[in-house]
Amino acid sequence: MDTLTHFRLCPFSRSVRLVLTELEFDVRLMEAQPWALGPEFMAMNPAGSLPVLRLDDGLTLYGAYAISEYLAEEVPSHPVDQLSVPLFPGDREARAEVRRLVDWFHRKTFDEATTHILEEKLYKRFRSGHGQPPDVGVMRAVHKNLNYTLGFIDYLAQERRWLAGDDLSFADLAAAGQLSCADYLGEVDWSGYASTKLWYARLKSRPAMRAILAERMPGAARPPPYYDDPDF
Amino acid sequence: MDTLTHFRLCPFSRSVRLVLTELEFDVRLMEAQPWALGPEFMAMNPAGSLPVLRLDDGLTLYGAYAISEYLAEEVPSHPVDQLSVPLFPGDREARAEVRRLVDWFHRKTFDEATTHILEEKLYKRFRSGHGQPPDVGVMRAVHKNLNYTLGFIDYLAQERRWLAGDDLSFADLAAAGQLSCADYLGEVDWSGYASTKLWYARLKSRPAMRAILAERMPGAARPPPYYDDPDF
Repeated sequence: MDTLTHFRLCPFSRSVRLVLTELEFDVRLMEAQPWALGPEFMAMNPAGSLPVLRLDDGLTLYGAYAISEYLAEEVPSHPVDQLSVPLFPGDREARAEVRRLVDWFHRKTFDEATTHILEEKLYKRFRSGHGQPPDVGVMRAVHKNLNYTLGFIDYLAQERRWLAGDDLSFADLAAAGQLSCADYLGEVDWSGYASTKLWYARLKSRPAMRAILAERMPGAARPPPYYDDPDF
Repeated sequence: MDTLTHFRLCPFSRSVRLVLTELEFDVRLMEAQPWALGPEFMAMNPAGSLPVLRLDDGLTLYGAYAISEYLAEEVPSHPVDQLSVPLFPGDREARAEVRRLVDWFHRKTFDEATTHILEEKLYKRFRSGHGQPPDVGVMRAVHKNLNYTLGFIDYLAQERRWLAGDDLSFADLAAAGQLSCADYLGEVDWSGYASTKLWYARLKSRPAMRAILAERMPGAARPPPYYDDPDF
């Protein structure tokens, strides 16, 4: 069976897992720890990127970019009640819009917010084996940056059913990957972003998302009570 | 005429300019200053990403990811003496390899090296209006990270004519965008990477690359003498 190497609180792993479930593309999950990748993993994947999709026919895909474009090219979408459109639906303009948004969430949101949240609130602790308080200055910058993303989503969600237009696309799932990890660690302040909340509530009620939100991370603090509640 | 908004020492701008020239896709260039993007630019492109390709038919593409995938889908490649293959040449395996490498250079090399080199050696100076010495600790980490990329390229270039295989691809141009900006600012130590040097020398002798290497940045230190020399 095809295998996805992931980490349960890696935002890229989550966006790819959401896509795979929406496409009804079954994989076996193997978990890696981003703060302690072993030499075999690094020899296979010197960038240290997650997730990694290893197909039974021998092809291995490294990272959300290669995996998502591969799935868009090679895997047919399902017309009924699952992902009703391709990952990058529509004409060239619509596809460009999806990719612009994916780039925002995977580069800007991750680089300026999610990666620091994971480092300060999770990896530090697991690397050292004991709790270390997050850096206050870093977290202040993170909240400002994350609010910029929330405001941007709010702006989009006021005008559109899904972030890139009428149809669910990889843009929504990429955003969900980032936000759900930050939310698990209690760092998303949803107040003031009513349209973002409505959009995220609709995502939360999808089976693919529900399955991920049901998972817990042993050794880490529990997520806030609204984390897996669609009516939050 | 189609317009590309770029910055001459932005590595993503460079990789896209290389692609456009290789594809004989003529654009008018407009320059922006990444350390001082104006409100009109940010209103149009709240991610602040460069480059931006505005087509005459109204479509606007933001960032190297959306632009490169658009060009791969929509612009035919030329069979003779220019880019002899598409940006993502070959079968699904070959395309996945190109995207894995692009991701390396655009995410890993940029995030861990190029962005810090630009900030420490260029943007700091232009933002403040006077020279400020680069942070020694940051630059030490940057050199270590950049050497990891150079070692990785060396490993690939020992086995392959171009980084992803037999044909020039977007992987080579993405790497050239990052390395040439770092090299302009004197931060690449090529010694010890003989195969990387040979690969880069072949890139340097291409007309698309020569045109970019002939440019200078007013107000910044001059690049090292070997910067635009294919026999370096």
